[in-house]
Amino acid sequence: MSRRCAPALLALLAITSVHAAEPRARDLGIPFEGTPGTLNAITDVAGVTVGQVTLIEDLADGHKVRTGVTAILPRGKASLDTPVFGGWFALNGNGEMTGTAWIDESGQVEGPVMLTNTHSVGVVRDAVIAERVKAGGADASGYWWSLPIVAETWDGHLNDINGFHVKPEHVAQALRDARDGPVAEGNVGGGTGMICHEFKCGIGTASRRINSDGHDYTVGVLVQANYGVRDPLRIAGVPVGQFLRDDRVYTDAAITGDTGSIVIVVATDAPLLPHQLKRIAKRAGMGLARMGSYAGNGSGDLFLAFSTANAPAQDSGALHHAQFLGNDNVDGLFEATVQATEEAIVNAMVAARDMRGEGGRYANAIPHAPLVKLLKRYGRYQAPK
Amino acid sequence: MSRRCAPALLALLAITSVHAAEPRARDLGIPFEGTPGTLNAITDVAGVTVGQVTLIEDLADGHKVRTGVTAILPRGKASLDTPVFGGWFALNGNGEMTGTAWIDESGQVEGPVMLTNTHSVGVVRDAVIAERVKAGGADASGYWWSLPIVAETWDGHLNDINGFHVKPEHVAQALRDARDGPVAEGNVGGGTGMICHEFKCGIGTASRRINSDGHDYTVGVLVQANYGVRDPLRIAGVPVGQFLRDDRVYTDAAITGDTGSIVIVVATDAPLLPHQLKRIAKRAGMGLARMGSYAGNGSGDLFLAFSTANAPAQDSGALHHAQFLGNDNVDGLFEATVQATEEAIVNAMVAARDMRGEGGRYANAIPHAPLVKLLKRYGRYQAPK
Amino acid sequence: MSRRCAPALLALLAITSVHAAEPRARDLGIPFEGTPGTLNAITDVAGVTVGQVTLIEDLADGHKVRTGVTAILPRGKASLDTPVFGGWFALNGNGEMTGTAWIDESGQVEGPVMLTNTHSVGVVRDAVIAERVKAGGADASGYWWSLPIVAETWDGHLNDINGFHVKPEHVAQALRDARDGPVAEGNVGGGTGMICHEFKCGIGTASRRINSDGHDYTVGVLVQANYGVRDPLRIAGVPVGQFLRDDRVYTDAAITGDTGSIVIVVATDAPLLPHQLKRIAKRAGMGLARMGSYAGNGSGDLFLAFSTANAPAQDSGALHHAQFLGNDNVDGLFEATVQATEEAIVNAMVAARDMRGEGGRYANAIPHAPLVKLLKRYGRYQAPK
Amino acid sequence: MSRRCAPALLALLAITSVHAAEPRARDLGIPFEGTPGTLNAITDVAGVTVGQVTLIEDLADGHKVRTGVTAILPRGKASLDTPVFGGWFALNGNGEMTGTAWIDESGQVEGPVMLTNTHSVGVVRDAVIAERVKAGGADASGYWWSLPIVAETWDGHLNDINGFHVKPEHVAQALRDARDGPVAEGNVGGGTGMICHEFKCGIGTASRRINSDGHDYTVGVLVQANYGVRDPLRIAGVPVGQFLRDDRVYTDAAITGDTGSIVIVVATDAPLLPHQLKRIAKRAGMGLARMGSYAGNGSGDLFLAFSTANAPAQDSGALHHAQFLGNDNVDGLFEATVQATEEAIVNAMVAARDMRGEGGRYANAIPHAPLVKLLKRYGRYQAPK
Repeated sequence: MSRRCAPALLALLAITSVHAAEPRARDLGIPFEGTPGTLNAITDVAGVTVGQVTLIEDLADGHKVRTGVTAILPRGKASLDTPVFGGWFALNGNGEMTGTAWIDESGQVEGPVMLTNTHSVGVVRDAVIAERVKAGGADASGYWWSLPIVAETWDGHLNDINGFHVKPEHVAQALRDARDGPVAEGNVGGGTGMICHEFKCGIGTASRRINSDGHDYTVGVLVQANYGVRDPLRIAGVPVGQFLRDDRVYTDAAITGDTGSIVIVVATDAPLLPHQLKRIAKRAGMGLARMGSYAGNGSGDLFLAFSTANAPAQDSGALHHAQFLGNDNVDGLFEATVQATEEAIVNAMVAARDMRGEGGRYANAIPHAPLVKLLKRYGRYQAPK
Repeated sequence: MSRRCAPALLALLAITSVHAAEPRARDLGIPFEGTPGTLNAITDVAGVTVGQVTLIEDLADGHKVRTGVTAILPRGKASLDTPVFGGWFALNGNGEMTGTAWIDESGQVEGPVMLTNTHSVGVVRDAVIAERVKAGGADASGYWWSLPIVAETWDGHLNDINGFHVKPEHVAQALRDARDGPVAEGNVGGGTGMICHEFKCGIGTASRRINSDGHDYTVGVLVQANYGVRDPLRIAGVPVGQFLRDDRVYTDAAITGDTGSIVIVVATDAPLLPHQLKRIAKRAGMGLARMGSYAGNGSGDLFLAFSTANAPAQDSGALHHAQFLGNDNVDGLFEATVQATEEAIVNAMVAARDMRGEGGRYANAIPHAPLVKLLKRYGRYQAPK
Repeated sequence: MSRRCAPALLALLAITSVHAAEPRARDLGIPFEGTPGTLNAITDVAGVTVGQVTLIEDLADGHKVRTGVTAILPRGKASLDTPVFGGWFALNGNGEMTGTAWIDESGQVEGPVMLTNTHSVGVVRDAVIAERVKAGGADASGYWWSLPIVAETWDGHLNDINGFHVKPEHVAQALRDARDGPVAEGNVGGGTGMICHEFKCGIGTASRRINSDGHDYTVGVLVQANYGVRDPLRIAGVPVGQFLRDDRVYTDAAITGDTGSIVIVVATDAPLLPHQLKRIAKRAGMGLARMGSYAGNGSGDLFLAFSTANAPAQDSGALHHAQFLGNDNVDGLFEATVQATEEAIVNAMVAARDMRGEGGRYANAIPHAPLVKLLKRYGRYQAPK
Repeated sequence: MSRRCAPALLALLAITSVHAAEPRARDLGIPFEGTPGTLNAITDVAGVTVGQVTLIEDLADGHKVRTGVTAILPRGKASLDTPVFGGWFALNGNGEMTGTAWIDESGQVEGPVMLTNTHSVGVVRDAVIAERVKAGGADASGYWWSLPIVAETWDGHLNDINGFHVKPEHVAQALRDARDGPVAEGNVGGGTGMICHEFKCGIGTASRRINSDGHDYTVGVLVQANYGVRDPLRIAGVPVGQFLRDDRVYTDAAITGDTGSIVIVVATDAPLLPHQLKRIAKRAGMGLARMGSYAGNGSGDLFLAFSTANAPAQDSGALHHAQFLGNDNVDGLFEATVQATEEAIVNAMVAARDMRGEGGRYANAIPHAPLVKLLKRYGRYQAPK
C-alpha cells in the first residue's frame, strides 16, 4: 500500500545534506557554542550508525503517507550482541519509549534505538525482535533482545497515521542500511512528517568535541523534533517566534499549547556509568529549553543517552570491568549535550522542507532569508567560514 | 496459522472456573488473611471487565502455540473515553509495560490494560489503537488513546514465541468479549503458557473488601504470573518449595535464578489520587515477597494500580473535582493489596494444568494433594467452608 | 557570637527593594515574557509569606559571617496545621532538601520551606520541629511536623560556613517575621553569601499571572541562586557572559565548572494535584536553562512546587475533595513557571551588592550600566514603563 | 542534661550480645534460609565498622531519655576520604534520610551512615560535618562531606523526643567508637527506644555469604526497626501475631495502622555499580514483607545499600576503573539481602528488652518461650546447633 523511498534516493539525500546547496544551521550564520565534530552529527561518535527509511506517497484513496523509521545502532552491526551503558529521562512523558524499565534496571541499551510515528511503535518493536531472531547466533531465541527501544512522535497532522503504513520490512531496511557518515536531516526517516514550533521539522543532528583531563571525547545528538508552538521560539537567543508569524499550524481552538513531542538521543564515547548517562539525558532538556520550549502537556519529551565506551566490559564471565569519568569531570559533557541538542533542533528546522499531507493540511519550513535577517538585526549573525 | 479458542469455549472456562470441580486456592484449605469479595476476583471492583483469548494449537510444522491475550477494562466499555487515575511501579524492570511514561505524567490510565507474551507487545499495542480508531466518536483520530498500556511475560519455554502468533484480531476479540463476573484462571489468555516457581501457572485473581471510616471499598488483583524458582516457594508461610521437588523446569546450567516475570494489576473503587495509586502498586511487591520471590534479575516485575472512583471528574471543562482518601486512611487498602496479590498468585498456580509445548518441553501444575498434605503437616490447613 | 540584622533593618530592606533607587531586572530594561503580578514576587500568591534573617558580621577572630535563613510559609501562619499539595524535582542532586521522601509519598508540603547554607541544614531542620512543638495545639508532639523541608546552597566562598553561625533563634525569627508584601532580594536571608555566574547573587523572586479557561491564576517563584560560571551566562538571550569578564570568582584550577547550586521554590494558587506539581517543579529547570546553565556536577539544583488551593480539602475526616486543572489546561502554568524562574534569577543578580567575606575573598555584583549597554547593542533593551 | 552510657558499658553490651545468655533469633530455634557470616552481622563485610551511643536516663523533671545514635562507617576510618558506591530506595517515604539526592546523582555514599530519632536528624547531620571539618586533611572545608546521610525512626512513645537529647558529642563518640566485630542489638544506639509489631525492638543485624561464579561475597544488613502492628506479624512463616496478643502498644483509637518506620542498611563486598545497589536496596523491602509488613502510611521505610568494593577506583585522576558483577550474576545477592533483612529484624526483636519510658508508657519485648512454643506447634522449630 505504501511506497518506500528507494535506497538509492536515501543515499542521495544523505549526500546532498552536506552539500553547499543544502545549508545547515551554522551555514546560515546562526551562532552556536562549542566545537563540533567533523560531520557535526551523531555519527561523529565512532561506531554509531544511522539508517532511515522515508515513506512519502499519495495513495489512490486520497490518504497521504508522510512517515518513516530511523534506526540508531550504538555499536553498528555489533549492537546485535553487545549492549552499551545507557540512561533515559522523561521531561514530559506524553509519549512512548519502549524498553525503559529495562534501561533503568540493567543500566544498558540493548540493540538499536528506533524512532517512528506514534501509531507504529508496536510494529517497529516486534519487527526489531523478529530481525534479531533472523540474525540467529548466540541468542537465537531473541530472549536477550526482547525489550527493544522504540520512541515516537505524532505525525497525524501531515501523515495518515491511522493507516498504519510502517511495516516490518521498513524496520528491516532501516537496520540493514544503517551506516556511519553524514546523516540526512529534515523530512526523513521517523521525522518525515514532523513539525516543530509550527514549522516543518523532522530529524536533526549535531555533535561536540571536548577535552577532559587530557582525553578527547565526542558527544553526538540526534533529535526527532515535533514539539512546540510559535510564540516562544528563540534561536540563538533571538525571539524569532515573535517575528516569523506566517503559516502557523495550530490555529484552531482545538489545538493550543505545546503539542507534539521531541525524542532526543545522545551518544558519547566518553566512559560513563549508567547513573551518569541518566544525568546526560537530563541535560538534553536544557538544550530544548534554550529554544523556548516549556515542555507542554501534550509533548512527549523523552531523552536517551548511551556511551559506546566499555565495549568489552560486559560480554564475558561474571566479573566485568568498566572505565568511567569521575563525577568531577563530567561538566564538559553536560555542556556539550546542551549545546549539541540546541544545534540539532535548529538543524532539523533548517533542513526541513515545506510539506503538504493528509487532509490537505500543510506545514512550511522556517524561511531562511527572514531568519538570517532577524539574526543580523539582533547582532547574532555570524558569517559562516 | 493459529487457532483461537472459540468464544463459547472461553465462556465455558469462565463458568467452570468457579465450579466445585475446579478448586481455587482456598477450596484446597490454603489459609489467607482478609475478606474476599463475592467472586474473589478483580471483577469484584464494579465496572471492571476482563476479556481473554487463549491460543493453543499444535501446528503442522511442529511448532506449538501456547499463548494469548488478556484485556482488563477499568470502566468496561466506558474505558473507551473515560480514563481512571492510575500509578505503576517497577520492582524489577526486566519487562515491558508500554504507556508508563504517560501514566507517571498524567496520573491516568487511558483505555484498557493488556497482557500478552513478550514478543507480541507491539502487535497488541498498535491493535489497541486501531480498535479505538474503529470505534470512532469523540476522538476519531485515536490521538487520546495513542499510548496504550501493554505488559508482558515470556512464554518461550512452552510457546513458539518467535512465531508471533498473536494477531490484531485476537486483541479485538479480547476487548469485545470483556465482561464482568468470574474470571478464568490458569492456562488462559496472556497467561496460557506461563510458569511460576517452576510449576505451570498463568492468570490468577483475588479480591478483598475493607471498611475505612465507614465506607466499604474493594481491592481486586489480577496477575499474569511467570516468575520464580522452586526452592524459596512459600505458600501460607509453609516452605513448600523445599518439599515439592518433582518436575522442576529450569534444570540446565543455562537457566538459573529467578527468570520469568510477573505483571500485577490492582483495581480499586476507593477514591485515590495518582500518587496514592503508585503507593498501592508498590504493595503488590510485598504480596509477591510473601511467596518467597526475591525479584530476580531476569524477572520483569511490573505493577499497575488504578481507581475506578472519580469517573465524572475528568471529562468536562478545565476545572475538575476529585474525591480521595486522606493518607491516614489508606492502610487498609495497602494491606488488602498485599493479601489479594498473595492469593491471586496462589490461585494462578492452583488453577493451572499440566502443559506440553514447544520443543517437547513441559511444565506441570502444582500437585494439589501433596500441597494439602504439607499444609496439614505445618498446621496451616484450614478446612474450606 | 553572631549578630542578626535587626528586624527594623530587614523591614527597611524589604521596603527599599521596591524603591526606584533599588532597581529590579525589568527596571534596567531587561525584557521578559508574560505578565507579572502586582509585586512580581512569590507573595503575589495569596497566603504565601516570607521571612528572612540576614547574618552579616566580622568576628573578632577574623572570621566573616555572611549567611542567613529564608522561610517560605505556603499558607502563612496556617502552615502550622494545614499542608499544601506539593511536588519536587532534582535536576542535579548535589544538594540537600530534607523532607523530600515524604513529599513524594504524601503529595504534601507540611509546614514551612526553609533555605539556608549547606552546613546549617540540620540546625534549621530541628529548630523547625522545636518551634512547632512550642506552638502546641492539635499535635503538640510535633509528630505531624516532624519531617521539615530545608534546602541549602553553599556559601563557603564568602561565609565562615564551618563556624556554623546559624542558630535556632534565627529560625524562630524567620518564621515569626514571615509576612506578605514585597520580598527583599539579593544579599539577604539564606542568599546572603551566595554567588551565581561568578557575580554576587542571593535571593530573587518574580511572578506571573495567567488565565486558564476563564480563571485567573498566579505563579510565584523564589530562588536562592548560587550556581554557574561566567562563560555561558545569557540574559534575555544576550550572551552576556562573553563580554562581562571582570571579577571572575573561580579562577584557580581547583574550582572549575558549574559549582554552587540553586534552590527554586514555585508557589501557585492554581488547583493542582501532587503529580501535577512535580511537573511544575521540572519546568523550573527550563527557566534556569535559559540563563545558560548546564546544571554542573557541583550544583545542587533542587526545585519545589506547591499549590495553595484546596486548603480545606485535607483537614477533616477520611474522605477529602480536591479541585484540579485537567492536564489539558496546565500549559499556561508551565510557561509561567519558566518565565518567572528566569526573571527571579536575574532579579537575584541585579539586586545583589558587592561583598567581601571569609579569607578576604570577594564577589562583585553584575555591573548594571555595562549590562544595559549590552542589551542595547543586541537589540534587547526595553525601556521600563 | 542527658547521660550517655559509658563506653565501657557499651563495650560490655557488645560483648554480652554474643554471649550464650543473650540468645539471638537462631539460638531460639527460629529457622532462616542461607548461610550467615562468622558474626551474622553487618560487620562480616570487611571494613565496615559500627559505633553506637545509647542514651537512657530518667531526668529530674520526670522526662525519660530513651534514644541514641548508631554510626555505620562503610570503610571504617577511611570513610573519611573514600566514598563507596551506593543506592537507596523508599518503600514508604514517611521518614527522613538526608543526603539521598546526592546518592542518586553521584552513585556514592560519602562518609558515615547515621541512625537516630526523628527529631535529632538535624543535630546529627551538622555534627557529622563538624567532625569532618575537625579531622582536617584533604578537604578541610568539609565541602566534600557536606551532604551527610542521616536516617531516623520515631521513638516518641518511649523517649522524650521533644527534649532533643541527642547532642553533637554523641555523634562524635559514635564515630570515634565505631569498630568491627559483634554489633550490639536491641535497645541500643539509634534503636534504643524503638518498637516493632508492638513489641520492644531496636537495632538488629545479620549477614549472608554467597558464592557467585567462583567468588565469595558477603551481604550484611543492619536495621533500626520501629514499624508495624501486631496482627500481621509472621516469623518464619508462622502467624505469630495472631497468638501473641499481650501488651499491645497501639490500643487507643488515635494510633492505628502501621506507624513507626524501619531503616535498613545493606552492605556488601560484592562489586556492584550504583544502579545495581539501588536494586539491592529494593530487595530489603521483600525481607520486610516476609514479616507481614504492608508498609503502612505512617511508616518511613527507607533502605540504603552500598558496596565496599572498588575502593581505589575513585580517588585519583579523571579516569577511574570499576569492577562489577554482570546483571546475570546478582540473583544470589538479591536473595541474600531478603534473607539477611528478615533475620536482622527478628534479631532486633529477640534482643530487645522490656522498657518503660516517657509518660509512663512501656513496650515489652517478644516473649521467647511462647514464641518457641508456637514455632514448634507449626513445625518450624529448628534446634540450634
